Amino acid sequence: MTTRPDLKKLLTPQSIAIIGASTNITSISGQPLRLMLEAGYAGKLFPVNPNRPEVQGIKAYPNAQAIPEPCDVALVAVSAAQAPNALRDCGKAGIPFAVVLAGGFAETGKYGEAAQRALDAAIKESGVRVVGPNCIGVANIATRAFTAFGGALYDKSLEPGPVAVVSQSGGVGLSMMAHAHARGVDTRYLVSCGNEADLNFFDFVHTLLAQDDVSLVLAYLESSLEGKQLRELGKRALEVGKPIILLKVGNSGAGRRAAGSHTGKLTADYTLFKAAFKEGGFIEVTDLHEMADVAKLVLGGRWPKGRNIGVLTGSGGWGVMTAEAYERNGLHLPLPTPATVEKLRSVVAEYGTIGNPIDTTPVYGKQHEVLQIIVEEPNWDMLHVRSAGGPILKEWTPKFLDIAKRCEKPIIVGWAPVPGLDVEVKHELEKAGIYCPSFAADAGRALGLFTDFALKRQQLLARKNAGAARPVEKQSLELNGKGALAEHVSKQTLARYGICSTQEVLLTLDAILALNAAPVPFPVAVKLASADIPHKTEADAVRLNVRTLDELKAAAKTVVDNGKKHAPNARIDGISVQEMASGVEMILGAVNDPHFGPYVMVGLGGVLTEVLHDVSHRYAPITADDARDMLAELKGAKILDGYRGAPPADVDAIVDALVRLSCLISDHQDRIVEIDVNPLFVKAKGNGAVAADALIVLRET
Amino acid sequence: MTTRPDLKKLLTPQSIAIIGASTNITSISGQPLRLMLEAGYAGKLFPVNPNRPEVQGIKAYPNAQAIPEPCDVALVAVSAAQAPNALRDCGKAGIPFAVVLAGGFAETGKYGEAAQRALDAAIKESGVRVVGPNCIGVANIATRAFTAFGGALYDKSLEPGPVAVVSQSGGVGLSMMAHAHARGVDTRYLVSCGNEADLNFFDFVHTLLAQDDVSLVLAYLESSLEGKQLRELGKRALEVGKPIILLKVGNSGAGRRAAGSHTGKLTADYTLFKAAFKEGGFIEVTDLHEMADVAKLVLGGRWPKGRNIGVLTGSGGWGVMTAEAYERNGLHLPLPTPATVEKLRSVVAEYGTIGNPIDTTPVYGKQHEVLQIIVEEPNWDMLHVRSAGGPILKEWTPKFLDIAKRCEKPIIVGWAPVPGLDVEVKHELEKAGIYCPSFAADAGRALGLFTDFALKRQQLLARKNAGAARPVEKQSLELNGKGALAEHVSKQTLARYGICSTQEVLLTLDAILALNAAPVPFPVAVKLASADIPHKTEADAVRLNVRTLDELKAAAKTVVDNGKKHAPNARIDGISVQEMASGVEMILGAVNDPHFGPYVMVGLGGVLTEVLHDVSHRYAPITADDARDMLAELKGAKILDGYRGAPPADVDAIVDALVRLSCLISDHQDRIVEIDVNPLFVKAKGNGAVAADALIVLRET
Repeated sequence: MTTRPDLKKLLTPQSIAIIGASTNITSISGQPLRLMLEAGYAGKLFPVNPNRPEVQGIKAYPNAQAIPEPCDVALVAVSAAQAPNALRDCGKAGIPFAVVLAGGFAETGKYGEAAQRALDAAIKESGVRVVGPNCIGVANIATRAFTAFGGALYDKSLEPGPVAVVSQSGGVGLSMMAHAHARGVDTRYLVSCGNEADLNFFDFVHTLLAQDDVSLVLAYLESSLEGKQLRELGKRALEVGKPIILLKVGNSGAGRRAAGSHTGKLTADYTLFKAAFKEGGFIEVTDLHEMADVAKLVLGGRWPKGRNIGVLTGSGGWGVMTAEAYERNGLHLPLPTPATVEKLRSVVAEYGTIGNPIDTTPVYGKQHEVLQIIVEEPNWDMLHVRSAGGPILKEWTPKFLDIAKRCEKPIIVGWAPVPGLDVEVKHELEKAGIYCPSFAADAGRALGLFTDFALKRQQLLARKNAGAARPVEKQSLELNGKGALAEHVSKQTLARYGICSTQEVLLTLDAILALNAAPVPFPVAVKLASADIPHKTEADAVRLNVRTLDELKAAAKTVVDNGKKHAPNARIDGISVQEMASGVEMILGAVNDPHFGPYVMVGLGGVLTEVLHDVSHRYAPITADDARDMLAELKGAKILDGYRGAPPADVDAIVDALVRLSCLISDHQDRIVEIDVNPLFVKAKGNGAVAADALIVLRET
Repeated sequence: MTTRPDLKKLLTPQSIAIIGASTNITSISGQPLRLMLEAGYAGKLFPVNPNRPEVQGIKAYPNAQAIPEPCDVALVAVSAAQAPNALRDCGKAGIPFAVVLAGGFAETGKYGEAAQRALDAAIKESGVRVVGPNCIGVANIATRAFTAFGGALYDKSLEPGPVAVVSQSGGVGLSMMAHAHARGVDTRYLVSCGNEADLNFFDFVHTLLAQDDVSLVLAYLESSLEGKQLRELGKRALEVGKPIILLKVGNSGAGRRAAGSHTGKLTADYTLFKAAFKEGGFIEVTDLHEMADVAKLVLGGRWPKGRNIGVLTGSGGWGVMTAEAYERNGLHLPLPTPATVEKLRSVVAEYGTIGNPIDTTPVYGKQHEVLQIIVEEPNWDMLHVRSAGGPILKEWTPKFLDIAKRCEKPIIVGWAPVPGLDVEVKHELEKAGIYCPSFAADAGRALGLFTDFALKRQQLLARKNAGAARPVEKQSLELNGKGALAEHVSKQTLARYGICSTQEVLLTLDAILALNAAPVPFPVAVKLASADIPHKTEADAVRLNVRTLDELKAAAKTVVDNGKKHAPNARIDGISVQEMASGVEMILGAVNDPHFGPYVMVGLGGVLTEVLHDVSHRYAPITADDARDMLAELKGAKILDGYRGAPPADVDAIVDALVRLSCLISDHQDRIVEIDVNPLFVKAKGNGAVAADALIVLRET
């Protein structure tokens, strides 16, 4: 766990120095002081401007050291060229934090290289912890400490809520705050990360997650090489039950893992981010309104305990639209239990439909009476009520509120939105934690995403109680040398973690030529064993389906000859004679990513993996539940049920192998960079799975 | 082409009878009169109410026949039980159209069966053309002829625009109109289809597409068995260049094609709808706001000529978000040409980025100057400008408008939306056809969808000019009998349309047993030929990879024996000895769907088709371009490029076979219900493709 700086003085400063404070109130260097004066910041303000005795009516100082008391934060609003000296001045004045607004540094490429170097040196020298440069700053909406600029901050209606906004783009961060506010989701802290010359995204989000006055974080992430920090952050968010609702854009800057193996080629950078989002307390969204929708649900405080939703409508059309929107987003609409159906009979008109959706059509009559009954429905974890707008909604709202008070399930009330109408009832409903989406598609997306998070958290808590059982203890392995291990050594290593391989003997060519009987039952595979030739197929050093002793001897000679042609100096360990396995072919892989850490992947062999990239990833170690989820994610998973008349495959054996593989890469991540089990033959249910080929690659140093 | 009724009097009535007009102005039977009186409908109104001399201040009549002049429309606002007699009364009064509001008919299942039958009889008897029942009616916003009810119609700010709304759900239809209106997209005609006892969705949309005062249709479709009508409607929309922006929900009621062949099982009902949407002038959306977004773009009148967009931003973050939103929706962001880069150098700051996006960061400076340059960029079909909101936007707007005036490309201007702000400039920009989305995700989706439509229309016009060339004339075929044709007959039929099969001879068992040499070069496939055994594999009547004369003789005996065991009374046509083909295995299929008509499908063989359903569909006949699009849609298309070291496959041969197959099913749809070519072996580029198995199924009657 990385040690994080204490950012209290930065986020809630009692006194602020404004270096370069300007009288031009529309300029970047004039805005912060004006903003704070207008908004009524109650702390102390110390403008620094060597040319003026006062700025915007406040006494000014020639430099930071001249300020009579140590400030909590310095807002550095001078040019890129002046910033380094300003930082040194702040350091000498004992100011612990500085926010550097100016652009013109690393973000401009070659142009700003020298300026960035000078700033980095000044940060180091001064000891000041720095936000930015190239940012719009830090704003505390509660205290109106605006060490920041930007149009959205002039909004007098801003009120502090339980939300923190952390953004790698100042422009997007301001819009996130402004749009969320317009939707009734109020921000307390806004942090623009800028170039992250010192303090970074992770410092901010970690600190804010730990604060009692923050219930969720809205974040915008462009790039990061800090995969492990991202994962640590995700874990933390899940533990504390505060989601990070995240807009992730751009390609990751994560270095590509050196080529050299099959599994690696299948792993795109974004895949690693996605796996981190899935693992941790992130909710990934694609735009600001989706972000606000999810935030409203989270802040509503009604957390779903499952994926089942009941829909109540008075309009057939809306019922279908709503049902489909939920189903598109991974929720289910099971039918109500007979007991509920029975109770509903007396309320729903004879020609209404008691199903899911329940349709009280054609006239909106008794939605509140129906709701009263269905809140008790054990098959439904959430409820969606389609209402009419206007007077009907107004009449029903107190009844909805009354029912909601006695129920913890998420309740969604939707009606056809007319701009400017029904604003008050909407506010009243939302105060009670009832989400009121304007559109079915929005409701579906937001509730689907929130449910994913809620169930992930539920699973985490369940696991904590259950304790983490692993099928194999850490084994001490002799992993000497570097680069690829020979196939038989790789398989022996897998065996130490309980992953079975095909029956196999390693013999010299002479020994094979002298054989009088099959060393393992025919048919067999014949493979050259050489640590110097990790990719045997490319060297044409593999013969499959060898069925007689003569064929075996011929094959042995061929693979040795071809191996020598391919790599004349290769050291030959022998010839591996292996049982030919059969079953469903799968690929298992494990990679120790330099940025994100060890992960496992699984795919079905052949075109599904290589052309359709139908693979699933999880960070190691994983549990059996994780492994099952991974298999369920595969689009081709149906093959495991028994394809073209084959019996169902031994899914338990795949799960077991995946978990063990994850333990192996996790235990030995200091030495192993990659494991490739390709193919794993999965036999019929109950008959296990065996690796027919395996490759372990060790760290180069 | 179906003949459509002339609906002029229904859509723009000069006189309206209101059967069952009520004094209760909030009731369904009171609302229409009140609505028209309040809104100032200028035509004549004749309330019919046997119990009152006047209703809402207007002289009332005891029945329709008592009205002194023939009305254009009767609004039937009586109960389900009274509706049939009211219709008869209207018929006798010479009223050509009636709108029946009441529910309680077929839509309620068993409950309303009798009422529906009575209504159907009255429609027939009366000769009146009927809208509904179970609908909210028909509204003409221009004349305020509201033969309808519903809260949204009370909105005094409704203005007629170039939009028609046609909906199979009254509730959704009203919301579609209201939301579009709130977004500045104005409706002229609103039609709620109801149960479609007489006039249906297609009648309405066809009529409205033909009207000069309608530029686009917003439609909501729940179900339809009328696949051919849907396709005809789509073609019409594309021809006239007026999109049908469509919300399609629910499962289709289309009957499932009788099982009995492989291809058929792969075709879900929704697939047929999707293929119809793709073929015709439909733009499928998932919710009301997406619908309004696309409508704004269409009404803006700036149609893209390609998929390339240039993005200009002043905020790095917004640039990335915007670019990604467009790319997610099938648009491309190519770099500008050197000439443009040269011109931009003097305008964009030294540390800005001249690429795509162009980033004028950090300070918004000269977006209008940049726009002036990039409207000329030949690489870009569309332009997106990220602006600041507020005063900067206000300052720039006249310049944007000035540039837009001299440019036909779609221009999108986006800024961070603050509710209530920048409303006027937005209106001004949108009047000039500049789309101003609030969110990048919305812009991406809407522009992607609109571009699909625009390019489809462009392609249609280009084709019209080019004329439709088909590779094969209609062949007269002897398609006698019914059910499945034998493989060799199926292949002969394919050959008539120029689709090649593997080299093959049909021999008797005796002839094979007497052979002294291979009838086709070894290895061969040996298959029982019997029209009574269409699925030979199931009968174990196929032997593959037969390599010697002895093996051939043994295989021939086996397939005959197995065939006889499987179907003792089967007529044996002989034994087919076939060349064993190799190459990429594909599946080609053609089906004559009873509702949608003939279509072709293509997929890559094995798990991709059977487990992942990675197949593509088009209605027949298709062009070579269509066939190429179909292949491009396959997720596994990369296999054709040469998978695992194989040479690139002969894509032209697949395209040719698909087009010919589409001609065959299209020419003989009266006889052929299905064709299954599985597998088609596609050889290396230039070497063609051959069907290794084929099955043609004829109509049962």
